[in-house]
Amino acid sequence: MTPSALPATGRASILEAFKAPLRRVDYPLPAAMEPGAILVRTEMAGICGTDVHLWRGELPIQLPVILGHETVGRIVSLGAGVDKDWSGLPLKAGDRVTWTSATSCGRCYYCAVKNQPTRCPERRAYGIGYRCDASPHFLGGYADFHYLRPRVNVFLLPETLSTESVIGAGCALITAIHGVERTGVDWQDTVVVQGVGPVGISAIAVAKSAGASRVIAIGGPDHRLEMARRFGADEVIPLDETQTASDRIQSVKKLTGGWGADIVLECVGHPSAVVEGMEMCRDGGKYLVLGHYCDAGPISFNPHVITRKQLQVFGSWSSEPRHMKAAIDFLSRNADRFPFASMVTHRFSLDQANEALQTTAAWRAAKSVIVPGVD
Amino acid sequence: MTPSALPATGRASILEAFKAPLRRVDYPLPAAMEPGAILVRTEMAGICGTDVHLWRGELPIQLPVILGHETVGRIVSLGAGVDKDWSGLPLKAGDRVTWTSATSCGRCYYCAVKNQPTRCPERRAYGIGYRCDASPHFLGGYADFHYLRPRVNVFLLPETLSTESVIGAGCALITAIHGVERTGVDWQDTVVVQGVGPVGISAIAVAKSAGASRVIAIGGPDHRLEMARRFGADEVIPLDETQTASDRIQSVKKLTGGWGADIVLECVGHPSAVVEGMEMCRDGGKYLVLGHYCDAGPISFNPHVITRKQLQVFGSWSSEPRHMKAAIDFLSRNADRFPFASMVTHRFSLDQANEALQTTAAWRAAKSVIVPGVD
Amino acid sequence: MTPSALPATGRASILEAFKAPLRRVDYPLPAAMEPGAILVRTEMAGICGTDVHLWRGELPIQLPVILGHETVGRIVSLGAGVDKDWSGLPLKAGDRVTWTSATSCGRCYYCAVKNQPTRCPERRAYGIGYRCDASPHFLGGYADFHYLRPRVNVFLLPETLSTESVIGAGCALITAIHGVERTGVDWQDTVVVQGVGPVGISAIAVAKSAGASRVIAIGGPDHRLEMARRFGADEVIPLDETQTASDRIQSVKKLTGGWGADIVLECVGHPSAVVEGMEMCRDGGKYLVLGHYCDAGPISFNPHVITRKQLQVFGSWSSEPRHMKAAIDFLSRNADRFPFASMVTHRFSLDQANEALQTTAAWRAAKSVIVPGVD
Amino acid sequence: MTPSALPATGRASILEAFKAPLRRVDYPLPAAMEPGAILVRTEMAGICGTDVHLWRGELPIQLPVILGHETVGRIVSLGAGVDKDWSGLPLKAGDRVTWTSATSCGRCYYCAVKNQPTRCPERRAYGIGYRCDASPHFLGGYADFHYLRPRVNVFLLPETLSTESVIGAGCALITAIHGVERTGVDWQDTVVVQGVGPVGISAIAVAKSAGASRVIAIGGPDHRLEMARRFGADEVIPLDETQTASDRIQSVKKLTGGWGADIVLECVGHPSAVVEGMEMCRDGGKYLVLGHYCDAGPISFNPHVITRKQLQVFGSWSSEPRHMKAAIDFLSRNADRFPFASMVTHRFSLDQANEALQTTAAWRAAKSVIVPGVD
Repeated sequence: MTPSALPATGRASILEAFKAPLRRVDYPLPAAMEPGAILVRTEMAGICGTDVHLWRGELPIQLPVILGHETVGRIVSLGAGVDKDWSGLPLKAGDRVTWTSATSCGRCYYCAVKNQPTRCPERRAYGIGYRCDASPHFLGGYADFHYLRPRVNVFLLPETLSTESVIGAGCALITAIHGVERTGVDWQDTVVVQGVGPVGISAIAVAKSAGASRVIAIGGPDHRLEMARRFGADEVIPLDETQTASDRIQSVKKLTGGWGADIVLECVGHPSAVVEGMEMCRDGGKYLVLGHYCDAGPISFNPHVITRKQLQVFGSWSSEPRHMKAAIDFLSRNADRFPFASMVTHRFSLDQANEALQTTAAWRAAKSVIVPGVD
Repeated sequence: MTPSALPATGRASILEAFKAPLRRVDYPLPAAMEPGAILVRTEMAGICGTDVHLWRGELPIQLPVILGHETVGRIVSLGAGVDKDWSGLPLKAGDRVTWTSATSCGRCYYCAVKNQPTRCPERRAYGIGYRCDASPHFLGGYADFHYLRPRVNVFLLPETLSTESVIGAGCALITAIHGVERTGVDWQDTVVVQGVGPVGISAIAVAKSAGASRVIAIGGPDHRLEMARRFGADEVIPLDETQTASDRIQSVKKLTGGWGADIVLECVGHPSAVVEGMEMCRDGGKYLVLGHYCDAGPISFNPHVITRKQLQVFGSWSSEPRHMKAAIDFLSRNADRFPFASMVTHRFSLDQANEALQTTAAWRAAKSVIVPGVD
Repeated sequence: MTPSALPATGRASILEAFKAPLRRVDYPLPAAMEPGAILVRTEMAGICGTDVHLWRGELPIQLPVILGHETVGRIVSLGAGVDKDWSGLPLKAGDRVTWTSATSCGRCYYCAVKNQPTRCPERRAYGIGYRCDASPHFLGGYADFHYLRPRVNVFLLPETLSTESVIGAGCALITAIHGVERTGVDWQDTVVVQGVGPVGISAIAVAKSAGASRVIAIGGPDHRLEMARRFGADEVIPLDETQTASDRIQSVKKLTGGWGADIVLECVGHPSAVVEGMEMCRDGGKYLVLGHYCDAGPISFNPHVITRKQLQVFGSWSSEPRHMKAAIDFLSRNADRFPFASMVTHRFSLDQANEALQTTAAWRAAKSVIVPGVD
Repeated sequence: MTPSALPATGRASILEAFKAPLRRVDYPLPAAMEPGAILVRTEMAGICGTDVHLWRGELPIQLPVILGHETVGRIVSLGAGVDKDWSGLPLKAGDRVTWTSATSCGRCYYCAVKNQPTRCPERRAYGIGYRCDASPHFLGGYADFHYLRPRVNVFLLPETLSTESVIGAGCALITAIHGVERTGVDWQDTVVVQGVGPVGISAIAVAKSAGASRVIAIGGPDHRLEMARRFGADEVIPLDETQTASDRIQSVKKLTGGWGADIVLECVGHPSAVVEGMEMCRDGGKYLVLGHYCDAGPISFNPHVITRKQLQVFGSWSSEPRHMKAAIDFLSRNADRFPFASMVTHRFSLDQANEALQTTAAWRAAKSVIVPGVD
């Protein structure tokens, strides 16, 4: 598309009031590009479970907002000084790209001194942290266009990698990559994954490809456990057959010679999973608290277990740009082994954005997506 | 002492009933030495806080028992096949030695496969886990003699290292060495130590000598904080000036540029310290649960903090023989910088063993010790 | 076999003079078992390339010797006190087992203090370091029986694991497991393996299963490169198409975006490979010197490359018992993915031991083995 | 100084021809500041050994150049958008600052993907990599002013830290901090430092404060060994008493129980030191090649040593901004323990720049510096 072919306005589906239907509006496209900015035409926007939390008002955001932080698009125009993607590949109009939803400042205490860029206080995320009622408006995925601000971490997508793979993996995969990296999988480790939602499925795939000899998935219902198997789980423990924490702990022990697993990855988000999961570790094992991006409240916990079992417990927050780079490489090489593209089960037009969101809210889809161009 | 000079019996002070006074008894010395065993004449036995817990019946042990798991003695006789200490130094009768209270089997799942020997299921500790009413009787420190079973991890003490240094450091130092090793101190880290009991004081010394730029100690009363300073604390936060968790967290933040510490070492033993201490870490920081050797019960805890702050949390159980070796080297080189010998403040004869124990129970001593030879 | 059914003597094929044919002799079986010893009837003995070096007199050993340090057998009798394998599994007569060729002492400076047991000065290897002209004679694999001395690291083989898998993998696999462990493969690393002999093939399998996204093998001839592909190599660089070091370095760079590989594993044994291989690493990459178990002499080397490329270079010597345990688990789970059993291409009777050795010397076999029972 | 008080020109001492005397010239100050740039009045410029190599033409640079890559100055004016130092501290005119000589791009393969920013291909260093015959001219330390380009890593110096400390430590300290970080010192390690030049002295201080129990320095002459002791060496091995490699290796072994050191840090720059130094490591030890920033040519080397001794060998190139931050903190806290300020032994005016350089070339100074303001 040449800039001359650009329309004056673009459509967006906006959240104006919590728990109310999204509303379709038109916004003017930015009149000029800042140096370093990129304008993208949205090709596909994923609906993440976090979007449901946002819609319900469970996180502290300002309205109105264009939801959508998992997005693929094609470059319409590039601001001055941008000619390469994050990893140095050349960029031009027409290229298909994705990007990290948040950008760290690169020069604060956490970015520079302590190398913890995900904890940079200046991070704001597209689709979450920007109001859309002022220019450049297009700062979320549920829209015809997406404006990428200067310093965005943008990634050229290889021809061989489908848009469905990228959106099917979504932010769950990069979250899992970061978490498993912090935990560290040793060759031939036995890994338990608690939970088979998007993050759990991704964690299974990452752990399996990172050297685990066996991955044991705990969750349900059955179709999710089937998916867990397709993404690398060697054994599954169905929740409907192990209804108490004690049952599940015993199931893990039975599968691990009575000792427990080398590594347990929590991808549930309920604090009771943490208490239960630590007991699934062998002594000297490792535990990752990955599902607690949201605050799900306190639980009765006895820290003696950490000493007695000599555990290592890790937390991991969001992800860094290099995890997106790794995800793109991983998806490109493993379309057959780990079929993330098949996650995209429900497609909606931009006008159906509200329906797309409700489909995710009702757990009726592996992954709902919005495809603005189909209108 | 030649074997011919050995008396037929030796004295011991035994725990026969919980919370009752220790009783002085005589036991026959073993008639013969097993291959690999060592008979030692006790030179000094430390009273550990754990001994008080044992005396009160707070840990599941079988009576009667000779308490005392921190001991130095001189070799009386060596069983067949023992001629070297754990690190290969030659041993002979008359040598002054110490030993680890427990011995791991070396060939089980935890010892061999997973390299977690402190979690070996076959460990039993001198002064805790052996009944004394059957031969060889002398399996605890509060006695004239100590029988060391085959495969004991025994260490020759260098001439330049005082017995007081070894007993003053006691099992607290090796516990701290192990814990700090698992946590890992990076060069110039800021370290907070919660608690200034024996483990806390040891943790301060180890952290300071392991590369910490600043050590901040939290605790009380004042004479313990003075000791904390003498062992390397750069700053102290007195409990009597910071009476709430929030006060203490703010004190740490104020001392660390608002961010929190790189590392926090819990040496308190109350579960609330764990909840409080994690908030003292900077994001991406490390937390060691070291004081929870005993089960002090549950607490209300929100695991979201581990994710949000991207923490690494470590547990550490007891210690390995190489930590004792490291402790002996460390004490030998640092008698001036870290004056552990000065911890030994109260000396008792074997007949006064009960008084020694009560002095420790009442927190009246930095360290009480029994010196059987003074009778 | 009951002890009463044991013959009075067993056959062995012994090396009496370097470069001379092996000679068949009969030796008496040991009259009594030491406590802790095990007598095994040899089921299969592998011929290792090292055996050829030993036969040629290129390593400092004492003659006569029964060669063979890769062996599987069935237990004939167990000395007093042995009732479990290294990992705690119960052992009884008739069980099929393998063992590490060398045993470390467990209590010296390298074993205990520094956790480098492969460098224990007391290690001697079956099939290499024991003269066979004195009782118990049977201390190598090319014989009807094998005597395992007290403290041997013996491993029960699971029913589902074929003897061919264990011998096909041989000491090459455990060498590779140790080396790759020391190097550390990060998720999605690109790994180059220099050399496609037994260690190279094993290194490919281990690196691939340890999280490498791509493994590039360098070597020849074509049938070995085919084997490299079967064991996980994604790309191969044939030596006959890249005849200079510069050609091979350029080939690696071309396959790695011009940067070089994250990890390069040297499995060649010629010092020039080390100089060449470091240039194949990206800056900040890792290099493993694994093929230099033998001293192959010096080379002109410029250490500036280590600084300029900011490399990490690792050495790895032999292997530890836990690597054997890991190998058995790995082989058990991956018979299809990594078909080590198919390596066993040539079988010989004990009377043909010399022919077996010459077949290996002439590189005519993937793996020659001796099967004493076929006579 | 207000901008209005700025002179129109500033003095510089420039290198126009290799091995020829530096020449004093006047250059116009930049007419305008780029956004992000900073103009500094030079307070002190260190003469580094590398400057001597540059003067001799031993490194590939373009002339003319203003030498000097270790500099402290006061801010004269700040370009648009610069109001904080690298670590977030506020900056204003008059502040005393230092900076890293090179800036990495932050977004290339080495900066972003592989986290090896010191290997960024876009790095150019002040005082080395910029011609001075075009505006802004002032891109090296031997001058009245220094122009800092946009994205410079600039650091506010605390009041309590003397300029002499920063310049006395110079680039040697940050080089050592980076190298020791890559190597990793475990608590109570025995460390050998080969060489007592500026990098060696810094390595001694860093290793000692990073947890080493003993530091053994090898070098000479005696006054440098005295300095080594002052900066933390517990023992010294004088070159004039140990004239062969074998002598020096034996001296290290004698001091380390016959085993060798846990860590050896090469700070010499001659390839023979690397061959010699690896033999000083205990088996399983670590070796850092730190002195080979320049290419000093090849040596006969047998890579078998890396396998046989199971070594870990590290290279380290230059340093990252966070090492400068750490150096400033370290110097601030340790003015007494590690008296880097006392290194500054010879002061010269800008007109004496050539004499300053020759003093360093002739090893007549611990550290020569130029103080432009004294003229």
